[in-house]
Amino acid sequence: MKTLIICSGGLDSVTLAHKVAEDKDRTLTRLVSFDYGQRHKKELSYAKACADRLGVPHHIVDISSVGKALTGSALTDDVDVPDGHYAEESMKITIVPNRNAIMLAIAYGMACSNGDEAVATAVHGGDHFIYPDCRPDFLKSFATMQGYALEDVAEIELYTPYASLSKTEIAADAGALNLPLEETWSCYKGGEIHCGTCGTCVERREAFDLAGVKDTTEYADENFWRESVKKAESA
Amino acid sequence: MKTLIICSGGLDSVTLAHKVAEDKDRTLTRLVSFDYGQRHKKELSYAKACADRLGVPHHIVDISSVGKALTGSALTDDVDVPDGHYAEESMKITIVPNRNAIMLAIAYGMACSNGDEAVATAVHGGDHFIYPDCRPDFLKSFATMQGYALEDVAEIELYTPYASLSKTEIAADAGALNLPLEETWSCYKGGEIHCGTCGTCVERREAFDLAGVKDTTEYADENFWRESVKKAESA
Repeated sequence: MKTLIICSGGLDSVTLAHKVAEDKDRTLTRLVSFDYGQRHKKELSYAKACADRLGVPHHIVDISSVGKALTGSALTDDVDVPDGHYAEESMKITIVPNRNAIMLAIAYGMACSNGDEAVATAVHGGDHFIYPDCRPDFLKSFATMQGYALEDVAEIELYTPYASLSKTEIAADAGALNLPLEETWSCYKGGEIHCGTCGTCVERREAFDLAGVKDTTEYADENFWRESVKKAESA
Repeated sequence: MKTLIICSGGLDSVTLAHKVAEDKDRTLTRLVSFDYGQRHKKELSYAKACADRLGVPHHIVDISSVGKALTGSALTDDVDVPDGHYAEESMKITIVPNRNAIMLAIAYGMACSNGDEAVATAVHGGDHFIYPDCRPDFLKSFATMQGYALEDVAEIELYTPYASLSKTEIAADAGALNLPLEETWSCYKGGEIHCGTCGTCVERREAFDLAGVKDTTEYADENFWRESVKKAESA
């Protein structure tokens, strides 16, 4: 089954790309990344590196004009990125309204144009409590909508193998697939190396720790995450 | 109810804008147009004129990078635009895959950011047989999907008053609302005036004729449409 993957260059989507590449029932056809005007574009180069490693084309779709229209998010505006654990209220600032619906709809259009049979995305269970457009009900309704939108035109599966799994299970998968962990980018800040203090850095370190996978990534702050996890657990 | 309208500058969406502007239960907040790399951008200036007339902001969202990614359509590629009636097989070339899902998802994101309570689109019954993403089943499933995507964030209605009406009924509405018909653009070609021979010109002339509304628009070919309609009827 010819499969297009939405790939940000982060741990989840790069792991998914490697998983699909090794899946005998699937053929990885392309990686698609979105430039929605995020303040740093570092992660896009990690998606490109993944595509090169797996020998497939990498498409960057520029939706920065859309990003500008969708104000109010720390990912696109001049608002400070908060430090700390995802579970904290302050993390809500990182929501770009309707982002997954927009990216998935574009990916479906591209899949349709290119004759792909599946669109894969690495949304996972850990995202549910804060992002409604990562929840299973959303994903199911999105696939249903696409069935109607492309009726008589194409039948394209929405492949979301991590939708009910935790970040820890993805970290374990990454370890099992032997992918170069330092070749994935999670940090919300745009430094040379991972900051170690933003929500995604903390979540990433916690996941590798719980999965028992040795993390080869370099972090500016090596120890912040343990305190942050403790704080979230006692909240 | 604060209502955002997706407006192409065509007859249907300009009529819808005037309809919402006169609706006591609604407040028109903004018109949103999409530049998806269509070969001519003339219609966008008609959307702008409509926004100016009604005193609301006009947003143009540049998704031309998406247009490039979605190859295979006469609206964005270097393929000749076919002449004739919409009902003909040749009109299928004018389909941009998944276009409505993409535009609606972006419009929902903008509505969410701006505190709008409804997204309105002028899709109508005449589009059903060729465009699956204009059919009532699609629209209903799209609204359901958005309910999940923005759960706990916003509740935004999908307003589609023309979904079960014909182009003729929209033409009648345009007449009743007294809007300047020559200030709407339907032609798929990019000439100085409407060509009168492409699918949308033929459909437009037929609709005004059936509605008994005097069409003040100038056409390069005044008579082609009658022959084309006859041809479609006898097919």
